[in-house]
Amino acid sequence: MNLSPLIDELIDAFRCLPGVGPKSAQRMALQLLDRNRVGGARLASALTAALDVVGNCAECRTLTEETVCRLCASDKRDQSLCCVVESPGDVFAIEQAGSYNGRYFVLMGHLSPIDGIGPEQLGLEQLFSTVESGIIKELIIACNPTVEGDATAYFIAESLKAQKIRVSRIAHGVPVGGELEYVDGGTLTHAFAGRKTLSDGFYG
Amino acid sequence: MNLSPLIDELIDAFRCLPGVGPKSAQRMALQLLDRNRVGGARLASALTAALDVVGNCAECRTLTEETVCRLCASDKRDQSLCCVVESPGDVFAIEQAGSYNGRYFVLMGHLSPIDGIGPEQLGLEQLFSTVESGIIKELIIACNPTVEGDATAYFIAESLKAQKIRVSRIAHGVPVGGELEYVDGGTLTHAFAGRKTLSDGFYG
Repeated sequence: MNLSPLIDELIDAFRCLPGVGPKSAQRMALQLLDRNRVGGARLASALTAALDVVGNCAECRTLTEETVCRLCASDKRDQSLCCVVESPGDVFAIEQAGSYNGRYFVLMGHLSPIDGIGPEQLGLEQLFSTVESGIIKELIIACNPTVEGDATAYFIAESLKAQKIRVSRIAHGVPVGGELEYVDGGTLTHAFAGRKTLSDGFYG
Repeated sequence: MNLSPLIDELIDAFRCLPGVGPKSAQRMALQLLDRNRVGGARLASALTAALDVVGNCAECRTLTEETVCRLCASDKRDQSLCCVVESPGDVFAIEQAGSYNGRYFVLMGHLSPIDGIGPEQLGLEQLFSTVESGIIKELIIACNPTVEGDATAYFIAESLKAQKIRVSRIAHGVPVGGELEYVDGGTLTHAFAGRKTLSDGFYG
């Protein structure tokens, strides 16, 4: 467009956000400059502050501004349960659901040899040594049900076979409130394979 | 959530963007912190720079970092045509369409007495004095087809009745590529009222 280099640069910078195309980026830039300069200044300073300070938790590797995150530091969490997830967003989602009260381990990715992501990049040594220390009784793997997530889950389970620890994986199936008709084939296959017995009368 | 005050503040700050709810804001914050820190830093600095420097053009009132914007300063634009729009985003949209080569006047809003927005807030004195100076031959009003936009268009047209100038308004009707079936009633009414004669043979 070349109407204003600074506005063009701002529109272009907004495109780094997920799900933001050229039209949305333009709307965001003009809205902040035109109608919400206070909000814009707050966003700029919050972003700078977070980028400066937020790093990874020394224990679970999630994003935090402290050395050890609040969940790892809390004495109200069940230390014998550990949930392995791929990203900090997964921790947020599980915490928002509110039904889990153990600790976490965040891989910050999944095994992907083609991108050079192996066990070291996912911090698996750290996870295995925590397991060997004997505090954890059950490791719940909540990797995404993708090819890479499945491979990562399988690799972790295999590596821990010799340990006295239960390794489980969260269930995959029809989402609550979902309609069977609109559920994809892969999910349905998982749902059938993971079916639970309600009553065994006929064969009893 | 209270997992990390800095991340929570960043998620909250992202919600000032148009069309961004809590889930998108969380996704944006975590994506920048986790995977795109370079893009995040660029966004923060572009936002700070634009908020510091960008103001309004002295002639057309659009957003610009210069005293007079590039469109007003250009000697390649037709100075006898002036298009009145509500916001800088409208200027971007018309420039992207590429068919208009006149100047602009940006109201930065529309008449809305209940919000205290009258002719002064829209800079109409400035527009009228430009018209009186005699350079402009046609004023094309491109206010949005809303109640307030219609009132603003009507007010401008009425105020300029005594001037030797053509005042027009852009056509409203069925969008190109749109299907009649899905067009709302108000647009269809405009489309019928603004119909053009293709051939007058039957009544000739």
